[in-house]
Amino acid sequence: MENASQSTIKGTGVVSGVAFAEAVWVRPRPDLPTSGTPIAEDEAAAEFDRFNEAVLTVSGRLETRAAGAEGNAAEVLNATAGMVKDRGWHKAVRKNINAGNNAEYAVVGATDKFIAMFEAAGGVMAERTTDLKDVRDRVIAQLRGEPEPGLPAVEGEAVLFADDLAPADTATLDGTHIKALVTELGGPTSHTAIIARQLDIPCIVAVGAKLRDIEPGTKVFVDGSLGTVTLGADPATSEAAVAEYRERAAKVAQWTGPAQTKDGHRFQLLANVADGNAARVAADTQAEGIGLYRTEMSFLSATEEPTVDEQARIYGKVFAAFPQSKVVVRTLDAGSDKPISYATMETEENPALGVRGLRIARDNESLLTRQLDAIAKAAAERDENAPTWVMAPMVATSSEAKWFADLCRERNLTAGAMIEVPAAALMADTIMPYLDFVSIGTNDLTQYTMAADRLSPQLAYLTDPWQPAVLRLIQHTCVVGRDNNVAVGVCGEAAADPMLAGVLVGLGVNSLSCAATAVAGVGAQLSELTLEQCQKIADIAVNSVGASEAREAVREYIANI
Amino acid sequence: MENASQSTIKGTGVVSGVAFAEAVWVRPRPDLPTSGTPIAEDEAAAEFDRFNEAVLTVSGRLETRAAGAEGNAAEVLNATAGMVKDRGWHKAVRKNINAGNNAEYAVVGATDKFIAMFEAAGGVMAERTTDLKDVRDRVIAQLRGEPEPGLPAVEGEAVLFADDLAPADTATLDGTHIKALVTELGGPTSHTAIIARQLDIPCIVAVGAKLRDIEPGTKVFVDGSLGTVTLGADPATSEAAVAEYRERAAKVAQWTGPAQTKDGHRFQLLANVADGNAARVAADTQAEGIGLYRTEMSFLSATEEPTVDEQARIYGKVFAAFPQSKVVVRTLDAGSDKPISYATMETEENPALGVRGLRIARDNESLLTRQLDAIAKAAAERDENAPTWVMAPMVATSSEAKWFADLCRERNLTAGAMIEVPAAALMADTIMPYLDFVSIGTNDLTQYTMAADRLSPQLAYLTDPWQPAVLRLIQHTCVVGRDNNVAVGVCGEAAADPMLAGVLVGLGVNSLSCAATAVAGVGAQLSELTLEQCQKIADIAVNSVGASEAREAVREYIANI
Repeated sequence: MENASQSTIKGTGVVSGVAFAEAVWVRPRPDLPTSGTPIAEDEAAAEFDRFNEAVLTVSGRLETRAAGAEGNAAEVLNATAGMVKDRGWHKAVRKNINAGNNAEYAVVGATDKFIAMFEAAGGVMAERTTDLKDVRDRVIAQLRGEPEPGLPAVEGEAVLFADDLAPADTATLDGTHIKALVTELGGPTSHTAIIARQLDIPCIVAVGAKLRDIEPGTKVFVDGSLGTVTLGADPATSEAAVAEYRERAAKVAQWTGPAQTKDGHRFQLLANVADGNAARVAADTQAEGIGLYRTEMSFLSATEEPTVDEQARIYGKVFAAFPQSKVVVRTLDAGSDKPISYATMETEENPALGVRGLRIARDNESLLTRQLDAIAKAAAERDENAPTWVMAPMVATSSEAKWFADLCRERNLTAGAMIEVPAAALMADTIMPYLDFVSIGTNDLTQYTMAADRLSPQLAYLTDPWQPAVLRLIQHTCVVGRDNNVAVGVCGEAAADPMLAGVLVGLGVNSLSCAATAVAGVGAQLSELTLEQCQKIADIAVNSVGASEAREAVREYIANI
Repeated sequence: MENASQSTIKGTGVVSGVAFAEAVWVRPRPDLPTSGTPIAEDEAAAEFDRFNEAVLTVSGRLETRAAGAEGNAAEVLNATAGMVKDRGWHKAVRKNINAGNNAEYAVVGATDKFIAMFEAAGGVMAERTTDLKDVRDRVIAQLRGEPEPGLPAVEGEAVLFADDLAPADTATLDGTHIKALVTELGGPTSHTAIIARQLDIPCIVAVGAKLRDIEPGTKVFVDGSLGTVTLGADPATSEAAVAEYRERAAKVAQWTGPAQTKDGHRFQLLANVADGNAARVAADTQAEGIGLYRTEMSFLSATEEPTVDEQARIYGKVFAAFPQSKVVVRTLDAGSDKPISYATMETEENPALGVRGLRIARDNESLLTRQLDAIAKAAAERDENAPTWVMAPMVATSSEAKWFADLCRERNLTAGAMIEVPAAALMADTIMPYLDFVSIGTNDLTQYTMAADRLSPQLAYLTDPWQPAVLRLIQHTCVVGRDNNVAVGVCGEAAADPMLAGVLVGLGVNSLSCAATAVAGVGAQLSELTLEQCQKIADIAVNSVGASEAREAVREYIANI
């Protein structure tokens, strides 16, 4: 078995890049008091003074660090200092002290109250509870005379592990020592992610509790684009990957488009987005448009279906970021790991093989037609030359494709389908006659072709996007697309891997859509390969016996060009 | 969408055949008393007399029916009568009456005690609790002067629904009225299944609570080989299917082998079995050997791994049923819907896409090698010319195939792999060089190719074994098999469908392995088609746009030969 001594855990990669260094954990938070040490009524004033003193020390320390920092880092440190001095929070602490609690316990109670408020607000506010907890922990450590929690002093290089990094810590992260960030919690919009992106440090969030199984001091290989942390990786291979990454990063920084091979073969380079914010971020890259707008991401927390007008407004925000350009909207891919309360089957034994994507509309067609109405409404507001394409997830048969395409055409929408069910690739000749385009979702296509859950860390060796079995299905789809004059795109993780993107273009894919952060890396890599070289590496990959063999063979071929 | 007005529920088909008639439920069981009506101490003797009288009436009635029945039916009725008169049970009832309970409540308590004992024993004993409940219900109805629960009087034709049929009822089932049996509970070895098999009435068990959603009087189409009950089926199509089935049944009864097409093209016709009992049943059919021995089925209730010697003894029972013939042993396919306590991952989001089959051995190779040792040990006892083939489930890559084959060869075992992961079919050219044979598992291959849970009733329209996408993978596998001189078999549900079996032979499949009950039907159908006609229907099916279109087109072609 390949790589039997390796093990890989997976989170959400939010900043791409690779690193190979020892894992260090941020200095632990103080143990919180679970009950108060009662104080007498006449001690309350002195206790609040003690709290005030700790506040001044902690905020002063943060402000000093802010003065020595720049830009966003300085802002974050000052914002944290401001939170330490927040009057509402002080008022809550004072109230708790006056009720007979000592300062430490009063701080815990006051903070819990604010956390509850933030969490009730949900979304972005809920992610900011980490800031509050950080402020609480710094003040409590100060009250106890303990060292301030947070970043350890690192000599040499390290990969920083944390449950979730506090903004004040990420703000002064030193990229010469900290080579990657990996957090147990957090999300793509957490401070950790924002700062890592600004510093361009590879970053993975939401790895889960299994991160704690890794002993501090263990050397780990981190791949921010794959979201993987690998233990027991081969040192020589890992170091070579890091060196290659640095060399490439320098080139990528200089790439300005257009998306074409070295010999001028054009392909479209697009971005995957989940909402208007992400679309605006993508508009600042070289992305020529949106290749995958995941509409379901806007509705994960909705308790009831938004009206057609509300939906149109939400979709319009994405369109607004690319007023002249192609935007490919995918209809609701609810179900499986993206449950939506108003559109998901209750309990399924295998949700990934269940009633998800287009299948939900089989018994609930109006859910789909309302969404298509909303997309059509938002599209009508666009420049008349701006292409709005619509595609369905989880199409498996030609009758499903026809049904969906008919509904789109009734609304003058350009109709397509995701190719992510193996049957859709195998039956492409029967499906494409109904469609204007297809987009290959490599993540799910790999999951089904390998019969291996894409979220299972034990099966990561099978769900590798380089699996030749999957590349063969892509190759077949491209051939049938050419015969049917149907555009074939790729919008899965595979399109974000620069070498694999070369393979895809070589296979005949017309457009690549990936995370906005990966766009320049893909564009830069492709600009160094001729179409013939892309075809050569496609041939190598498709005829390899396995995923790692394919990756290695292509890497070697490119290195020897 | 096709068949939008139809809905299908699925159970375990245990006797093949089709029927189209109104659903009737067996007369309901009496409501059981949940508390006793206390009796005075001096009433106990009279109360026990009342019980004894009921016992005599019920057992006498059963014995009268036994006298009018034949063979197995008479045996079952006499056995039930014997259970009514069981002394141990009477003793338990008497004890309960003497403790101050009336006869009805005493019967409930005594029966519960015996049920608990049977269930603790597990396996076949646990399935027999239906007998006990039946005896209890008949006696309680008699004590109350209510009509005896059980079979309704049916005029015309009916499909009989029940939670689980009592042996005494199945024993006197009249095949001229009752055209199919469908039960909510039960298992393949329940009395329901045994009697249905004897009477050759199509039978489906273990449908689950959803059976109760079907209104009595609804006309349903039952397909015993697919295990499906369809509501809203087209009457003309259904009646044609029934007529065809009857005509075919007459032909099948006369078929005596050998397995070959009309023009003498030989293929192997084998049976799928789970244990020695099933192998002996298969040996009484025209099956030439075992094409799939599911070893995991013997270990579902084991709490720890059987030793090598114990395993060898179990495997030896299957070998003994076919002393001279080929037996294909599949190594443990634990995981997913067949959890084995000592070999299954704890909790997975999508067990069908999880660590199952060969994957379990990746981190636990000795589990596999102990099983291979046991198979080799049992095989060494066989006639030296009797072929023992061993195959691994869930092979996805060539490195897995090589690893498994090496372990087999070290033990002088002929090595093969299931082709049930789409990747294995797509990469057959890289996998087959390591193997002597492959066997296509159409059930799982369909599940993954269509990305649809094979157990999901909502997705039955996708998991149809006639899906052309799956047939294309089978076709590709056959082509690669021919190039590599590797035998290609099919051992999924598809091989049990006589028309589809013709398609498979036309695609180039060398052997078909199906349930023993389906062997004659497949053999008879194939004996009426030439190889060229098989190739023609294969071509038709592979080039159809969908599963129902494929089935219809082939049906029509065969009808017009």
